[in-house]
Amino acid sequence: MEDLKDRKWKVLESIYLFRKPWCTVRSECVELPNGNWIPEYFVYEYPNWVNTIAITKDKKFVFVRQYRHGLGMTSFELCAGVCEKEDASPLVSAQRELLEETGFGGGRWSEYMVISVNPSTHTNLTYCYLATDVEPVTSQHLEETEDLTVHLLSSEEVVELLKTDQIKQALHAAALWKYVAENRLI
Amino acid sequence: MEDLKDRKWKVLESIYLFRKPWCTVRSECVELPNGNWIPEYFVYEYPNWVNTIAITKDKKFVFVRQYRHGLGMTSFELCAGVCEKEDASPLVSAQRELLEETGFGGGRWSEYMVISVNPSTHTNLTYCYLATDVEPVTSQHLEETEDLTVHLLSSEEVVELLKTDQIKQALHAAALWKYVAENRLI
Repeated sequence: MEDLKDRKWKVLESIYLFRKPWCTVRSECVELPNGNWIPEYFVYEYPNWVNTIAITKDKKFVFVRQYRHGLGMTSFELCAGVCEKEDASPLVSAQRELLEETGFGGGRWSEYMVISVNPSTHTNLTYCYLATDVEPVTSQHLEETEDLTVHLLSSEEVVELLKTDQIKQALHAAALWKYVAENRLI
Repeated sequence: MEDLKDRKWKVLESIYLFRKPWCTVRSECVELPNGNWIPEYFVYEYPNWVNTIAITKDKKFVFVRQYRHGLGMTSFELCAGVCEKEDASPLVSAQRELLEETGFGGGRWSEYMVISVNPSTHTNLTYCYLATDVEPVTSQHLEETEDLTVHLLSSEEVVELLKTDQIKQALHAAALWKYVAENRLI
């Protein structure tokens, strides 16, 4: 199952269409190993992202609920965020985001999953952490543009959300279904 | 667990930065329910996407392997694609993609999961199907810009790929981990 055959594309030309904090897009002219060209392939540059399955001592899952403008709906999500330049590691980013968005901290943390929102177009990875025995340690410290509520859900409620596709964000659904599989929650 | 409180944003201005087939981006000035504004929020418009967990009569999983330029790596994926305008439904799109990319068809199909690659920025949904008892019915019919190989994997091999984060694409990892959970493969 190793990478038997690397089919890397050759980049013949690369220009930035946009270089903004949340919209950095390259347009590239590429040549495939079969000799064909794609004259305009779009690559979206992002910093790495993080999210956390955070579970309290009494086995409640810490979720946030917020409006998501792409789909135009309000839904349950894991606490998630972006790796800022000043964060020493993705773990630090995840711990910072959990504290800021929910006020929960402490506990035992481990890296749970490293996947991509879209390997074909996005340059970044998403680090998912599992944090157990977290506890409320401070109040929320939201940014002005954050508008979210915190919810402590039972494992049964999490499974119900998953089974009814109410966890819409694929990165979160992947990590949570892995947790359900490993812990035989269904 | 219903949508107790809709926190929808008000769009004050919306302009297209780009309107290309694989890069349609709106920049919107929005007002949040808390009164704060985001002057430049980027929304990426895409058609809906599809992917399929396709399993043969002898319980092999039909995977494809291809180079993905965003991450710059070659990896295993579910057969996936885009809902074309001429497709009557996402199911038709998924069946067409499986046939074109792998030559497999037939079998029994059911909708397995409907999630989003990123509800905060993307307008589209991804429909995942479960297709059992598929069989080889034709040869591959790849587009000029498609360069992929077909692999029949055992459930043990799929679980190993998942556990080692070799299924990098979050939409695929989510559907496959759900399958592992429901079928108690670990």
